[in-house]
Amino acid sequence: MTEAALYLIPVQLSDVELDTVLPQNNIQIVKEIKHFIVENVRSARRFLKKCDRSIDIDTLTFYELNRHTRIEDIPAMLTPLIGGEAMGVISEAGCPAIADPGADVVAIAQSRGLKVKPLVGPSSILMGLMGSGFNGQSFAFLGYLPIDAGQRTRKLKDMEQRIVREDQTQIFIETPYRNNALVAEICKVMPPHIKLCIATDITGDGERIITRGVKQWLNQLPDLSKVPTIFLLYK
Amino acid sequence: MTEAALYLIPVQLSDVELDTVLPQNNIQIVKEIKHFIVENVRSARRFLKKCDRSIDIDTLTFYELNRHTRIEDIPAMLTPLIGGEAMGVISEAGCPAIADPGADVVAIAQSRGLKVKPLVGPSSILMGLMGSGFNGQSFAFLGYLPIDAGQRTRKLKDMEQRIVREDQTQIFIETPYRNNALVAEICKVMPPHIKLCIATDITGDGERIITRGVKQWLNQLPDLSKVPTIFLLYK
Repeated sequence: MTEAALYLIPVQLSDVELDTVLPQNNIQIVKEIKHFIVENVRSARRFLKKCDRSIDIDTLTFYELNRHTRIEDIPAMLTPLIGGEAMGVISEAGCPAIADPGADVVAIAQSRGLKVKPLVGPSSILMGLMGSGFNGQSFAFLGYLPIDAGQRTRKLKDMEQRIVREDQTQIFIETPYRNNALVAEICKVMPPHIKLCIATDITGDGERIITRGVKQWLNQLPDLSKVPTIFLLYK
Repeated sequence: MTEAALYLIPVQLSDVELDTVLPQNNIQIVKEIKHFIVENVRSARRFLKKCDRSIDIDTLTFYELNRHTRIEDIPAMLTPLIGGEAMGVISEAGCPAIADPGADVVAIAQSRGLKVKPLVGPSSILMGLMGSGFNGQSFAFLGYLPIDAGQRTRKLKDMEQRIVREDQTQIFIETPYRNNALVAEICKVMPPHIKLCIATDITGDGERIITRGVKQWLNQLPDLSKVPTIFLLYK
């Protein structure tokens, strides 16, 4: 029987069979949980149906947690867990609380001494890093780069410093429609000894994880305007 | 049929059933691979037998890649892949190339334009971060802290700066027999508004992922002298 804990339940990143990216045991746990804190109710329902068609969605409770949620409304979501029932956190894609609003509810659970239980699943950050060939002993994920051109260039220069001085891989993301502009800028701003890994559609049919020197990329810029992509920089 | 690629194959972190931490599809892929680059041959064999007892280990080729391997011996390991055969990389525990020697061979594969394919599996860094409640939009993994007392204190102070100025979660590890001394030092050096998450035995029977203020930890220091542990700091 699933114990009373806040289960952090990863979701597939792409349209694949779940047994490609999730352990069988995750599905067993999901089937025993009645209360879910989710980024989006509709996609959470779709995920649960994909886990097991026999799950009766109408018997489940969903609490929505996303950028529209007020911080003061989060603690009450944990009432079933405080009462001894298992709860699940499900985000749109990938691992809850990584580049994701789930961290707020985990922090509240921790502050109240409630048990938190992360499950295994796909993370484009981690899989991109594994596939890049870059330093996996020291790395930083920075989320989205600043939109302002000046701040953005400064951020790229900061990253270059950390690659050179601290031997640290730098990982970041961009809104898909700005991906192409970002790659062009990286190739222009970074010196030739810096390498860029572009990891697109991880776990999907179009998965490509390719590392090249920035000047090599400049010769054949890829079209990433609609593809979820992780960028990694190293030397 | 498994395509010709360098598969990065995660291994369980603790003594659990594989279906708790690995997707079923990983096992299918493993069964079709004949050439493995491994951190340690004996534990790789044990892992393969655990994947499927029917695997005939004696028909497989193993290349050992660890800190004793000479860099110049690595490229030749990729010969089967260049010849069109799938290869696997297996480390001692967790995800290859993350806090691990596998990154060297991935870098060589990338430089030769060979396909690299990371698979899903448990990462104590990522699972510790998910469970901590700390910022998952910006985080850094720093590997082992310096052994020298002065450098170590300076490193902790650097981390404090990055938490405060950059809002970045700081993640690191220590050799288990030094874990207790490290926790005591962190609690002494860090100001009261800093929180420490101690994540021990992730995915194992003794899993505990607990976040508290550094001064709270000081009142009840845990015994971590023999347990694999990930440390996370944030505010």
